[in-house]
Amino acid sequence: MEICLNNAVENITDQLQTWRRDFHQYAESGWFEFRTATLVANELNHLGYQLQLGKDVIDADSRMGLPSPAQLAAQEKRAITQGALIEWLPHFSGGFTGIVATLDTGKTGPTLAFRVDMDALDLNEALTNQHRPHAEGFSSCNPQMMHACGHDGHTAIGLGLARILKQYQSQLTGRIKIIFQPAEEGTRGAKSMAEAGVVDDVDFFVAIHIGTGVPKGELVCGSNSFLATTKFDVTYHGKAAHSGAKPEKGKNALIAAAQATLGLYGIPRHSEGSSRVNVGVLNAGIGRNVIPDHALMKVETRGETNEINEFMYQQAINIIEGAAKMQDVKADIRLMGAAQSSHSSPQWVDFIAHLAQNKIPELTSIVKNRPEAAGSEDATYFMERTKTLGGQATYMIFGTELTAGHHNEHFDFDENVMAVAVKTLATIALSLPEFGAEYHE
Amino acid sequence: MEICLNNAVENITDQLQTWRRDFHQYAESGWFEFRTATLVANELNHLGYQLQLGKDVIDADSRMGLPSPAQLAAQEKRAITQGALIEWLPHFSGGFTGIVATLDTGKTGPTLAFRVDMDALDLNEALTNQHRPHAEGFSSCNPQMMHACGHDGHTAIGLGLARILKQYQSQLTGRIKIIFQPAEEGTRGAKSMAEAGVVDDVDFFVAIHIGTGVPKGELVCGSNSFLATTKFDVTYHGKAAHSGAKPEKGKNALIAAAQATLGLYGIPRHSEGSSRVNVGVLNAGIGRNVIPDHALMKVETRGETNEINEFMYQQAINIIEGAAKMQDVKADIRLMGAAQSSHSSPQWVDFIAHLAQNKIPELTSIVKNRPEAAGSEDATYFMERTKTLGGQATYMIFGTELTAGHHNEHFDFDENVMAVAVKTLATIALSLPEFGAEYHE
Amino acid sequence: MEICLNNAVENITDQLQTWRRDFHQYAESGWFEFRTATLVANELNHLGYQLQLGKDVIDADSRMGLPSPAQLAAQEKRAITQGALIEWLPHFSGGFTGIVATLDTGKTGPTLAFRVDMDALDLNEALTNQHRPHAEGFSSCNPQMMHACGHDGHTAIGLGLARILKQYQSQLTGRIKIIFQPAEEGTRGAKSMAEAGVVDDVDFFVAIHIGTGVPKGELVCGSNSFLATTKFDVTYHGKAAHSGAKPEKGKNALIAAAQATLGLYGIPRHSEGSSRVNVGVLNAGIGRNVIPDHALMKVETRGETNEINEFMYQQAINIIEGAAKMQDVKADIRLMGAAQSSHSSPQWVDFIAHLAQNKIPELTSIVKNRPEAAGSEDATYFMERTKTLGGQATYMIFGTELTAGHHNEHFDFDENVMAVAVKTLATIALSLPEFGAEYHE
Amino acid sequence: MEICLNNAVENITDQLQTWRRDFHQYAESGWFEFRTATLVANELNHLGYQLQLGKDVIDADSRMGLPSPAQLAAQEKRAITQGALIEWLPHFSGGFTGIVATLDTGKTGPTLAFRVDMDALDLNEALTNQHRPHAEGFSSCNPQMMHACGHDGHTAIGLGLARILKQYQSQLTGRIKIIFQPAEEGTRGAKSMAEAGVVDDVDFFVAIHIGTGVPKGELVCGSNSFLATTKFDVTYHGKAAHSGAKPEKGKNALIAAAQATLGLYGIPRHSEGSSRVNVGVLNAGIGRNVIPDHALMKVETRGETNEINEFMYQQAINIIEGAAKMQDVKADIRLMGAAQSSHSSPQWVDFIAHLAQNKIPELTSIVKNRPEAAGSEDATYFMERTKTLGGQATYMIFGTELTAGHHNEHFDFDENVMAVAVKTLATIALSLPEFGAEYHE
Repeated sequence: MEICLNNAVENITDQLQTWRRDFHQYAESGWFEFRTATLVANELNHLGYQLQLGKDVIDADSRMGLPSPAQLAAQEKRAITQGALIEWLPHFSGGFTGIVATLDTGKTGPTLAFRVDMDALDLNEALTNQHRPHAEGFSSCNPQMMHACGHDGHTAIGLGLARILKQYQSQLTGRIKIIFQPAEEGTRGAKSMAEAGVVDDVDFFVAIHIGTGVPKGELVCGSNSFLATTKFDVTYHGKAAHSGAKPEKGKNALIAAAQATLGLYGIPRHSEGSSRVNVGVLNAGIGRNVIPDHALMKVETRGETNEINEFMYQQAINIIEGAAKMQDVKADIRLMGAAQSSHSSPQWVDFIAHLAQNKIPELTSIVKNRPEAAGSEDATYFMERTKTLGGQATYMIFGTELTAGHHNEHFDFDENVMAVAVKTLATIALSLPEFGAEYHE
Repeated sequence: MEICLNNAVENITDQLQTWRRDFHQYAESGWFEFRTATLVANELNHLGYQLQLGKDVIDADSRMGLPSPAQLAAQEKRAITQGALIEWLPHFSGGFTGIVATLDTGKTGPTLAFRVDMDALDLNEALTNQHRPHAEGFSSCNPQMMHACGHDGHTAIGLGLARILKQYQSQLTGRIKIIFQPAEEGTRGAKSMAEAGVVDDVDFFVAIHIGTGVPKGELVCGSNSFLATTKFDVTYHGKAAHSGAKPEKGKNALIAAAQATLGLYGIPRHSEGSSRVNVGVLNAGIGRNVIPDHALMKVETRGETNEINEFMYQQAINIIEGAAKMQDVKADIRLMGAAQSSHSSPQWVDFIAHLAQNKIPELTSIVKNRPEAAGSEDATYFMERTKTLGGQATYMIFGTELTAGHHNEHFDFDENVMAVAVKTLATIALSLPEFGAEYHE
Repeated sequence: MEICLNNAVENITDQLQTWRRDFHQYAESGWFEFRTATLVANELNHLGYQLQLGKDVIDADSRMGLPSPAQLAAQEKRAITQGALIEWLPHFSGGFTGIVATLDTGKTGPTLAFRVDMDALDLNEALTNQHRPHAEGFSSCNPQMMHACGHDGHTAIGLGLARILKQYQSQLTGRIKIIFQPAEEGTRGAKSMAEAGVVDDVDFFVAIHIGTGVPKGELVCGSNSFLATTKFDVTYHGKAAHSGAKPEKGKNALIAAAQATLGLYGIPRHSEGSSRVNVGVLNAGIGRNVIPDHALMKVETRGETNEINEFMYQQAINIIEGAAKMQDVKADIRLMGAAQSSHSSPQWVDFIAHLAQNKIPELTSIVKNRPEAAGSEDATYFMERTKTLGGQATYMIFGTELTAGHHNEHFDFDENVMAVAVKTLATIALSLPEFGAEYHE
Repeated sequence: MEICLNNAVENITDQLQTWRRDFHQYAESGWFEFRTATLVANELNHLGYQLQLGKDVIDADSRMGLPSPAQLAAQEKRAITQGALIEWLPHFSGGFTGIVATLDTGKTGPTLAFRVDMDALDLNEALTNQHRPHAEGFSSCNPQMMHACGHDGHTAIGLGLARILKQYQSQLTGRIKIIFQPAEEGTRGAKSMAEAGVVDDVDFFVAIHIGTGVPKGELVCGSNSFLATTKFDVTYHGKAAHSGAKPEKGKNALIAAAQATLGLYGIPRHSEGSSRVNVGVLNAGIGRNVIPDHALMKVETRGETNEINEFMYQQAINIIEGAAKMQDVKADIRLMGAAQSSHSSPQWVDFIAHLAQNKIPELTSIVKNRPEAAGSEDATYFMERTKTLGGQATYMIFGTELTAGHHNEHFDFDENVMAVAVKTLATIALSLPEFGAEYHE
């Protein structure tokens, strides 16, 4: 099996690059993945996958950090001018840019799901000749949108995997779902797909990422200890007044924000694990001689466990509302993103490590877990839901060389990682009966 | 009349000094004036004044900054050991140390009231030979209580005036009330006497002070523009926790107090006049390694008008309660004192200035008003109530030499001012028909 | 004289409107008055005034709140496309948009100066049919620039006055200077002209404003008690770090700004007069999950006297630098504007009041002074310099009906006020010998 | 050996209780252990130990949190009235209350050291009948001093161990030092003894504690991960002023402290481990109507490693000094205590665990390490110094039942733990050759 899988993957290497570079060039930020989603859906449809699209896989009310209807409409128009496929667009219209493609083998067996994400970052891409996407003509043509985290590669991997699995359908059992998720940046999209139930029938779940500091040739089979996080915007609404003529008539939104900022950073440390809080952005006021009547804060809390993050968030709410009361201003708190803490299932990780060790020679270093908790990922919503319902889940990282850190305007990666990832994931699918057998005993 | 009044006053000059030094030696802080009040009552009774005492002249619920029952009881015991007259004490027991003495001439005429205050400051007196009270053996024998504002002199002036007026009763008309007020320091006592109605029948009202920076020989006939003020204690009640082991279990009263402190000083300036705010004292926490579970703040607001002070106070309440909410602690706010802004009645001031100019040669400089607003006085409650009910009111200041500023441990004054004050006030009483005549036209 | 002055002014009423509406349509913000200045210079040149332009009347280093060279260059280009006169432009290039026009009568007599300002506000104009400038087609064609304070009218008044005075040159004595100042908004321009010495030879100085709440038909002859002010931008430079991965590596510019904000509002009240402080704008941070590495604060202090404002400013500097030290970030403080407190010269005000009362029947209410201090004006730099060098100065306000408050996007005024102003100012010039006569006695 | 050791220890059980109850009754807080130290020295001297006392074992400049000379003198007098032995007192006078007792066996072998602490807490003891020390008449007779952490027991254990070891001297090798340390509470004393070199010759070091939540019968052989800590007092010196009359003349120490408080709690979390910060006490100001001219803060930082604590402390210093600059006040920072993080030496812990398991049947549960880091201990200075110089060190905890948590006014413990501790420690000394043999290979 390995030999012909090698060939099959080799055959699509160019296609992986083509897909990735196309997605890179037409980078689309979270909830704006209109062009990407229509192309992905079209390809999967051609391959013969059963498709669930848009509102069927996204719970509208669980979406977080959704842009305004006007912004969504404008981006939909933009997508059309960039080649979005009109016939698929209605499914995704209004910020429902998620896809679940299912391959039902008809044979008995567990359900296996792979999740990739499709969104770009709100960032202008570097336009220097040292930056390959620019030098080779596939840098983003959309201002303030850039694939600087590798999700263009993830989407290409998802499509490549779909193609390979279709080729090997006769050797597969059970059902395989490939989940294409919007809006992972800011941890805004996964919850809405998990709430829509897309992993409720899943026995084995795999989320993937490339890079993140893992060296080329290394596979992290189960990245652990993501920090749970809550991301939210706070807007204080006060009352403007001339600061010279009638200072007492104002209600000062900036003072409220300053008090809240100091309060938030001062939330106590938690004795049971790591916690974080940040006020990353504060914009307040309209003019030097006007009492500031509004203030916008972009805030996030994190915790080593969901409980610690919940503690941080509840303290934050008290602080924010108390600061509003202090200045007699109104506080609006809007949830913009969230992720959970999650641990990969140990048996499932062991199985994947065993496969990788034995079947993927390109992987020269196999690491079971990566302990340090620092970032957050909303794939944790899928992982926790899968595990809660009795399944097993993991988060895999494929090492690759980077030209710059994630979220940097010079970010680029060694595209060879895509073929390695496709081969590894296909191997998992093809080998699952071995594990499933054990698993059902 | 002037000549014999001169003699009469001269005859009591020694007595004025004796009284003042006795009160000085047995200094009693606000609501603790048990010894002072019994001696004053006894003297006025001997002179033949009608007396209203304690609860008859003090509205219990309007008292502010009252010490605890235990403290009151302890001080009452202390007073007995220092010569308080047992027969009068029951009237004043429990913090009702006010006296109104009335001389009813039986003749038609307006009611004239004089107000003096009797309380000392919470201060240890200087025990150096440069300080006359110590050098001459009449410095305070009560720790943390010292007459450093001249109220000992005021009380003596009140008694001297009572004695003189009694002598001149036949030349007087209408009714004359002398009000001996407790707890002026911290502006805690006057409201309770005004609320009890002691000036409700008063047509002309005079409050007095000595010193305050006015030079010897000068009389300010109507000190204006006292700042309205509200004085209050804030206690935050949180929850202690070990700062190393379980910091997240605490509810931090000190953080609430720090936030409130910054918020309070940041209350906006008012375009319609002066305002003030101060957090004069903050005491919080019990140990270095314990999350502070309590914090006490001594706060005051002031305003050039009652409206401005009310603005300050309302902002302060929002800030204090909002800071409590920020840290999920409880805030107790306790009113400890208050005074109003007030202006002396112009006609009444003119009349007094005219009298002083013509009849009191010791007064070499007559100033009608003193404009600058800086301090606060609760005599303003009497003034405002008198004016609201149709009467006229003023606040007079008798200049004298001071050895140190008011509220300083070395404070002392030139005792000759007392005779000048008695003579001037008696002259006002004796001359009132001249003014009243005009007044009723 | 009055009759023919009436006719002369009547003859230019249409011209005043034409000028004002042209300046309104091509509104130019402070230091960008390239088109306005070339048209003004050209007109004054045609009239035969001696002109001093640009660097001759503006001290480069005393300019405050100057835009960047790139912005200045871009606006100069924009001005050319809108009809700026190329032959005059070099004088004003680079932000030197000031003009002093002198009419030397050749006759003995004092030097009289009038000052008008030319700049618009950074504001988008209302584009509704209720707003006359839009309805009648002369609303601003420049985004974020609008004459919402009446300076378009002031410039027209200056030109109208120049035309009238030229007609009446034979009846005038001494020298008359008309100062056209840039960048009054934000109090950025006057100091640079005062420092260049443009009023050093002036005996009598008049600055004018229209509106400001003064009713139609009323003249304020000497607006007093402008608040001294200092306007400055503070930028904190810290260090970014990932708020989840390495929070300890950041240096948090936002915390510094929050601390500074609370500190600034908490600067103590001043017992000697009004003070103000405002942090009108705060912008900090780049992303929710990044420790904020920069923060920009737009701050202003004010004081009833220069001393009080200086007290406020010095406290502010301590607070800003201390907050930087607290977070180990760097603070850059950049002066953006300043004005002084100033009082109009009483004799000069009396003279103007007398003239207005007797010679300008349109002025139905003559007010000598307006006491309340609330706003700031950099004409105070001219006033203080004139008075310091022995002259007399005043600030006149011509009442008119407004459609909305100053600085509002719907601001418009009754254009008849312009003719009244021209007539009144011309009358002052023509009548000066009467006052001068007295004055020299 | 075991049998006779059992008997030997049993024989001193009553003595252990007598000692402990005597120390409990005459509880002495840190640096005030005058009576305790003289009794301990006298007993050790009688037993025949070589003694090093006072300045020989305490580096004067390394003492932290030392009371004032006046307080030390007063407490020395108090100690005399309570039975301190005059002949030993001079050694300890002035806050040098440390003792090192050495038993030199004359035989080759390593040096083994035991450390116990002698100080009480600044706490009033509960005086209820439910509290055994009160019910049985040995509650503290010193106000604000109470043995509420078990150091009375530690001292008794140290004396009991000294007596037993002396009995078994012939079976011992090398040298044994018993260190009696003052002022462990507040982590103030150990550094001064470590700096004096008392463990510089030590090969094996053991510090002990009883209780701390460890159940009766359990032994923690090596408590790890103490938090490094720095404890310091901050005093802000500002300038008082009347808050109504001259607020601008004050320099507000309370605002500085409030700013610092918020800044301190806001020091960033550290990605490499736990950190803590607390402002446990803040006392500021003298009167409601006075700008606060002083503020005292009791602060502590902690860190899972010395580096993290150092990071916290350096941030704290910046914050405190920056806050001083903000208000133009002076900050005095005084070191009051410190401890390091430290890990017990694994081999040494293994050896002790092995002994306990096999030789002390009273110990029914043997725990090698206790991971959670929460509190701080200055025994870490001895541990780190021993380890740095090539030795091995551990911190042992003997479980026992408590009547209330440590530092609680109702704290008491099951006194049987003392005999268990003596036996275990004596066993370590007697068995050392077994380990030493291994150790030297």
